[in-house]
Amino acid sequence: MFRFSLITTDGKARRGRIYTPHGVIETPVFMPVGTQGTVKAILHKDLLSLGTQIILGNTYHLYLRPGTEVIKKAGGLHRFISWDKPILTDSGGYQVFSLAKGRGGKKPAVRITEEGVEFRDHLGGDLHLFTPERVIEIQEIFGSDIIMPLDECVEYPVEKEYAKKALERTLKWLERSIKAKRREDQALFGIVQGAFWEDLRKEATLRTLAFDEHLFGYSIGGLSVGEPKEIMYEMTGVVCELLPPHKPRYLMGVGKPEDILEAVERGVDMFDCVVPTRNARTGTLFTSQGVIDIRHAKWKEDFSPLDPECDCYTCRNFSKAYLRHLFVAEEITAYVLNTIHNLRFYHKLMEDIRKAIEEGRFKELKEDYLKRVSVKL
Amino acid sequence: MFRFSLITTDGKARRGRIYTPHGVIETPVFMPVGTQGTVKAILHKDLLSLGTQIILGNTYHLYLRPGTEVIKKAGGLHRFISWDKPILTDSGGYQVFSLAKGRGGKKPAVRITEEGVEFRDHLGGDLHLFTPERVIEIQEIFGSDIIMPLDECVEYPVEKEYAKKALERTLKWLERSIKAKRREDQALFGIVQGAFWEDLRKEATLRTLAFDEHLFGYSIGGLSVGEPKEIMYEMTGVVCELLPPHKPRYLMGVGKPEDILEAVERGVDMFDCVVPTRNARTGTLFTSQGVIDIRHAKWKEDFSPLDPECDCYTCRNFSKAYLRHLFVAEEITAYVLNTIHNLRFYHKLMEDIRKAIEEGRFKELKEDYLKRVSVKL
Repeated sequence: MFRFSLITTDGKARRGRIYTPHGVIETPVFMPVGTQGTVKAILHKDLLSLGTQIILGNTYHLYLRPGTEVIKKAGGLHRFISWDKPILTDSGGYQVFSLAKGRGGKKPAVRITEEGVEFRDHLGGDLHLFTPERVIEIQEIFGSDIIMPLDECVEYPVEKEYAKKALERTLKWLERSIKAKRREDQALFGIVQGAFWEDLRKEATLRTLAFDEHLFGYSIGGLSVGEPKEIMYEMTGVVCELLPPHKPRYLMGVGKPEDILEAVERGVDMFDCVVPTRNARTGTLFTSQGVIDIRHAKWKEDFSPLDPECDCYTCRNFSKAYLRHLFVAEEITAYVLNTIHNLRFYHKLMEDIRKAIEEGRFKELKEDYLKRVSVKL
Repeated sequence: MFRFSLITTDGKARRGRIYTPHGVIETPVFMPVGTQGTVKAILHKDLLSLGTQIILGNTYHLYLRPGTEVIKKAGGLHRFISWDKPILTDSGGYQVFSLAKGRGGKKPAVRITEEGVEFRDHLGGDLHLFTPERVIEIQEIFGSDIIMPLDECVEYPVEKEYAKKALERTLKWLERSIKAKRREDQALFGIVQGAFWEDLRKEATLRTLAFDEHLFGYSIGGLSVGEPKEIMYEMTGVVCELLPPHKPRYLMGVGKPEDILEAVERGVDMFDCVVPTRNARTGTLFTSQGVIDIRHAKWKEDFSPLDPECDCYTCRNFSKAYLRHLFVAEEITAYVLNTIHNLRFYHKLMEDIRKAIEEGRFKELKEDYLKRVSVKL
């Protein structure tokens, strides 16, 4: 039912294919984030037409709203949201731990014990308990194709002693997750933590590998949480070096185009990030010539397309002047058109990456891209 | 270049066809409102796929933002917004006079003289002057297919004496508009005012008819401005009785499905209204079984389509439970999916009306519809 096939490699970059009950995923892949059962500001039909292969759902948000009962009665998440392609859900851990920072000087709304994580939600403030078992149960109700175990994600900077504790807890929770898992039509990933130390990352990887027979793939967690980029890239490399070649690797919550290129070069297959969709809604648009702030007055009378090299609906039909006008006028269609473009940019980047790996020229592609996309127009 | 052909009638209901430089419009027609160069919360491609034949643009809003200079440099409104089908623009009068009521006890921001209307805009508060000549000039820059002369629209209730003054002014401004008009590829309508008195409406109609050779069609203005529905229907009937059969009639700013049916029965061909799009964004959805408030808890676990008789993308793919979830979660896609549905409902209503007139059964259709659509589920 689940299978990962490694088609070819180019250096450490990998061209693969994931088979799931809801279809095939060509890797390296970018997965748009569908937080609350929809990718923000874009319809499913537009996602499909611009090349989305799999979307991500956030367990924390879906558990709160519409709630597991509604999703269960609908016959699972795919049916509830009418999305027939693969879905990956996270463990909810990242959202819960984000609450732990407290807001506006308030007391942290989270208590972590060996049992699990107790938290007050951001909507009504009700008290909840996420345990490894409960998080698996919720995702089994969702019926997502790829599921994640509860883990403890620490942010940068952190004391090494605490990072070690979080790593231990994550491993214990992984063991309990594996025991709790029932459904055969879902694939579980192990999450490698270890924060920002090479020795902790190595230890986390090797000890997660002890559960390899139960794991379809490996997630690299706890990165892109405030640390310098070099640390993110280094830690990604350290973990990938130790992972088995025949299983997919997923760098959680990453990232910008340059981060994706750096991580693919180190052997990562899967990515998710809110950057393309969130930036679309704030007017920051990716183009083959660099990043554009569409709000800027200099686009007021620029009737050329946003990105002449892009084949998306937005670029084939509308000018920068029109997109700027819609954004300044706070029209909803501005967010929709921008989202279509930014996601198409990401998917096209992944298509280019896959092709370059197949043709043994990933390094050239990466260098060419880094020169272009890092420019702020 | 412009032609109206009356295909058939059923009682006073009319089945017609308007030929414009940007294509043919089957009437009776509903025109979605594209206030600022986009119909709110829906992409052009979706408008086309659900049967939109012509959209309306608001001169007041487009004049302020992006401004006439930008639209001129873009090569006109069609090119600026990339919409190849017909566009109708209003005169801006209605928006300006809405400002005249003043806001929050502030002094009215509008001064009306014989020359025109002086007003402060709602954005930066700058002072502007709309004269009949200027309003024609602006619309000639836009290049909209169907244009409106500046008129004075009064709200309900109003003193008859003032309504008479507004009527006189509207007629004088029409004469000046006709003199100012230059472009041959745009069609001007005359606007019939006269408020809520039969004698004033008759006078307004007959005196507007004096300019018939310069007018492609007739707008009925100053209705749906707070008066009881019976008055709206009665005044519509009074005006239509006196209008020439071979020219299109446009009831401005109307309306709800029941208003459209009543007006078609009295001989109106064209409609525009923000109701379907605005209601979509507040969760009020039209269905063949009645009106639905999608926010209501009773839809929480209702996995049936919004309207089983509707063929739109929203109804063919998603459940009421999902649409409710998206709306409660304040997702942008909720507004988009709701807008697609409400506009499709309106366009389907017009398709049904056109077919019923062709088949001589408009009265049955109207009675059947009124029974159904007036229900609040």
